[in-house]
Order: sequence, then structure tokens, then C-alpha cells
Amino acid sequence: MGESLTLRVRNGHVASGARLLGWLEDGDPRGAEALRALHPATGRSQVVGVTGPPGAGKSTLVDTLVAGWRARGLRVGVIAVDPTSPFSGGALLGDRVRMQRHATDRDVFIRSMATRGQLGGLARHTGEACAVLDAMGYERIAVETVGVGQDEIDVAALAHTTLVVCPPGAGDGIQAQKAGLLEVGDALVLNKADHPGADAAERDLRELLHLRGASPEGWQPRLFRTVASRGEGVAALLDAIEAHGRHLRETGGFARVNGRRARRALRERVLWRVEERLLERAQADPALGSLLERVADGSLDPYTAADHLLEAWIPTPHPDPE
Amino acid sequence: MGESLTLRVRNGHVASGARLLGWLEDGDPRGAEALRALHPATGRSQVVGVTGPPGAGKSTLVDTLVAGWRARGLRVGVIAVDPTSPFSGGALLGDRVRMQRHATDRDVFIRSMATRGQLGGLARHTGEACAVLDAMGYERIAVETVGVGQDEIDVAALAHTTLVVCPPGAGDGIQAQKAGLLEVGDALVLNKADHPGADAAERDLRELLHLRGASPEGWQPRLFRTVASRGEGVAALLDAIEAHGRHLRETGGFARVNGRRARRALRERVLWRVEERLLERAQADPALGSLLERVADGSLDPYTAADHLLEAWIPTPHPDPE
Repeated sequence: MGESLTLRVRNGHVASGARLLGWLEDGDPRGAEALRALHPATGRSQVVGVTGPPGAGKSTLVDTLVAGWRARGLRVGVIAVDPTSPFSGGALLGDRVRMQRHATDRDVFIRSMATRGQLGGLARHTGEACAVLDAMGYERIAVETVGVGQDEIDVAALAHTTLVVCPPGAGDGIQAQKAGLLEVGDALVLNKADHPGADAAERDLRELLHLRGASPEGWQPRLFRTVASRGEGVAALLDAIEAHGRHLRETGGFARVNGRRARRALRERVLWRVEERLLERAQADPALGSLLERVADGSLDPYTAADHLLEAWIPTPHPDPE
Repeated sequence: MGESLTLRVRNGHVASGARLLGWLEDGDPRGAEALRALHPATGRSQVVGVTGPPGAGKSTLVDTLVAGWRARGLRVGVIAVDPTSPFSGGALLGDRVRMQRHATDRDVFIRSMATRGQLGGLARHTGEACAVLDAMGYERIAVETVGVGQDEIDVAALAHTTLVVCPPGAGDGIQAQKAGLLEVGDALVLNKADHPGADAAERDLRELLHLRGASPEGWQPRLFRTVASRGEGVAALLDAIEAHGRHLRETGGFARVNGRRARRALRERVLWRVEERLLERAQADPALGSLLERVADGSLDPYTAADHLLEAWIPTPHPDPE
């Protein structure tokens, strides 16, 4: 059954993909088995991270990007990590209605990461979801995150191409935040460019872009003015995303991002299994159980407990050089 | 030297506390050694989490709470995790100037968690910082976070008392978010209560509070209207925070939160050491190193690599029952 599921996922069967994503979110061991089997089918999608502060219009932009990609004949996945996104069920009714125009398009797959990492980190779940959508044959995957917090920075590290979306008319304080976000942007999007303050914001952003310069591989991030709600400026942005994808493939950056995602998956898988074994042992071994109790009641500090635990459980196999 | 530093920290010496926090952020092994030694001096501070959406006025509220605690003769620590907080250097000049009124008060210690977890998670760093401020004798520790993301939920779990701060006049979408936040609130603060829409917001919030009811231990969260910028309503809120602290001490909840923090510290310490050893081994052992390379270049899937790695490195000491 597992094998036929992976086959159906590789054939782009939507219900099978959704079931696999459910297994992964629930920590069901069949999820990891399926990902192992799907590995050879991954590595082709271009993952496009869309980040920025709340209110920048990220969801509307994603919605128009999806439409643009579809018009170019590309199959598209959307992963919404942003808790304020209509894709993840977090926003106003009007937004939700608007994005439903893709709901009947079987070449668009939308997944929300609203359940925030009860079983492992948000970045792990998002990375796994990217792998599933990749194996399903979606050629572009948009990952929408709100640009606040380490989680979101980790999620952004999964993307091949990162768009930083800024609203006009933000104050000095937001400016400082933007500077941090800018460092991860392969393209900068001044959305709602018909609002007052857009010209002033453009000047500020151009200055920041100028300070930053090109990447070591020669990619110069550019600024795009868009009015996503009317689709204005989106075609040029789509061209830039495609150009960045080609640039990455030519310079080896595409494989480098995939490798980073794989190394991260390995790291998280190992730590996850270690923790799982640790819990099993703590339940089976009374000495370990009492160690945990003494930490909980404060009679033993966690650092000494960690030493005991590691020594009892993972004895150093051969002495260290020094 | 380590011993005299821990002694100085226990005596509340500010520069020594700051140095220890720096070690912990840098992953310097002296940090963990010092925390181990300081463990008997911890467990007394009441940690007060202050969370809510951006723009709710959390920093201003923290500023007035600090003033109120100081007026009651209490020593106060502030940990700013919120990237938009003036305490962490993220906000407008006016805010920063306002909070500086505490900068010369040696019974107020302010620490920013702006450096977001390059070496371990944000929650780990925040938990460690709480332990340091606790050992230094700060009787109340305010932890300011923005109410978005798993990181922030993890940070909120460190607090004895959680305040959820809401601005008036938010739409339906924000309402849904509030419902999630509300579940963690021991008190609800409707700040900027002089703004239009405050009465409508109060009705909505009271309804949510009513649906929620009292905790299993009998604590009924209440709603407080404040105008933090003018100090209005803050005295009643301070009284509620003190009452919640007494309630926790009477019902065993205070020790339970400390135990949760300690168990989390143990877990993170163990996983951190496991990862550290793993990296050491990967550098020393060519077979391990090539395993990592094969994951990075995509020729081996991370799940199979994790199995190899765990089997080679941590052989199962005795077979599992099944």
C-alpha cells in the first residue's frame, strides 16, 4: 500500500499527496517511509519564498503569482505558513473568497501549515511539504511566511528564490526590520505601489538595495513596484523569478539550496529519533525516569542531568584525543 | 574565576550577569557551568509573559508595569523577545527614549533577545536568561514577545503568568488569532482603551473569556482595560498579577512551571550535546563525512542517512521487545 501511495503521489494524485502530508504532520512513520521512497523524484521544483510584514499584501501577491504561473502553463503548489494568510484560514472573508478562484484548478495545490509544529519544528514540516509537492510535479512552489521570527527565517532558508514584500509608508522602525529582511531577498517587491508614500518608500528601498550590491554569484536583487490586487507589475516580477531560477541552475545554486534542505532534514530526523528513543528509555528505565523527576522538582539541575543521561545512554565509544 | 563569577551573579552584580548572558548566547561552555552552579539560587522569580499582536502597545505596557513594580519595591528584569520592541532596539525613537527612564535604575535589568538563536532555539536562550535574572534576585521578570509563531508560544510556556494584550478595533481575522492567544492568557489586557472601538472589542473579548471559563485550579482570567501610555488601569492589572502569583504558589502551579522550564532545559541540553558530538564525529570519521556529502548532493535520501548514522553512532544497546 505504501508503494502504491508513493506511485500515486509521483503521478500527482491530489488526495494521496494530501494523505501523505497528513501522515507527516501527525508524525506517522509511514510518512518518513514514503519520503524516502519519493526522494529520487524530488529536486526539480523552484521554491519561491514570499515574506514581509503583516499587511504588505503577501497573500494577494501569491494569488496573482499563481495566476501568472498558470497562464505560463506551470503547475503550482502553495504552502501558507503565515498565520494571517487567507490561504491558512487566518484572514478576512474577502481575501478567502478571492483566492478560491484556484480551488477548482487541479494544477494548483494549496496547503496550510496552520498547525504549528506540535511534532517537530515548523521548518521541518514545511521542508517535508516542499518535498511532497516537488515529487507531485508542481514546478513552482510558493511558500508564504510572515517576516517575523526565527521559524520564518528557517522557512525562508528552504527557498530557492526569496521575495521580500514591503508596504509603502512604513516608519523608521519598520525600515530597520526591512534592512534585516532585505538581506535574504532575491527580489524586493514594493506592493500597494498606488498608495501614498510609495515614492518615498521606493527611494529608501533603492538606497538599501544599492548598499547591498550583487551576490557572490553575480545576482543583483532588483526592486519591483506592484499593485497585486490589480495584477499591475506582476508580469515583470514573474520574469525576474524565472530569470533567478535560470541563474541558480547555471551557477550551481539550485543544487546548493536542495542540499541545504536535505542536510537540514537529516539533522532534524536524527535529533527527532534521538528524542524519541530517549522518551522510550525514560519510560522503560526507572533510573532515567527518576532523573527526569528530580529535574522537574528542582532537586537536580538540568545540566548535570544531561551529563548523566548522555553518559548512561550514549557512552563515548572511544576516548577523545585530548 | 568561574566560581567568583557565579558568586557575583548571585549578589546581583550587573556586569557579571551581562557577561554570563553573553557566554550563553555564544554557546561558551562556561555559561552552562555557571548555570549549573547557580541552580540552587533559582526558582523564586515570577516570570510574566506579555504577548499580543504588533501594535497592541506591549512595550508601553511593560514600561508601566516596571514602574509599578519598582514603586512596590520589587526588583525587575525585562527580556525583550519581540523584534518590534523598543527594548530590543526595534522600534521608533520616541519609544526608545521613553523606556530609558529605567536605564539608570540599577534594580531594573533589561536584556534584548534580538540575536535570534544562531546557537540553539530562541526559547532555550530565553529560558537561560530567565534563570540568570532569577539567580540575580530579580523578583519579577517581564518577557515581551510578539504573539505570532511557534517560537513565541514556546517562550510563553516559560512564564508563570501570561498577559495577552489586545488593541481595540481589530477585524474578524484578528479575532480568530485572539481566540488562540486567549487560551494562554492568565489575564487579558485591552490596551489603548481610549481608542474608538474599545467598547465593541471589550464585548467580543468578554464573550471569549466567558466561553473559556476558569482553569482546573480555579483561576478565572479577567479582562483589564488600560491606557498604558498614561498609566491608566495598570494598578489593577498589577494587583491581578500579584494575585495570580499567590494563587500559583498556593496550588503548586508555581513549582510546576519551574519544573516545565527545567525539563525543557534538559531536553534542549541533551539534543544540543548530541548534535555537537555528531558534528565532531562527522569531522573525524571519513565514512560519516561522506554520508553527509551524499545527502548534500542528493545521491542519498536524509531518512536512510539518518538510519545509518544512528546505527553507526548509537547502536541499540539491547534489542527492542518486538
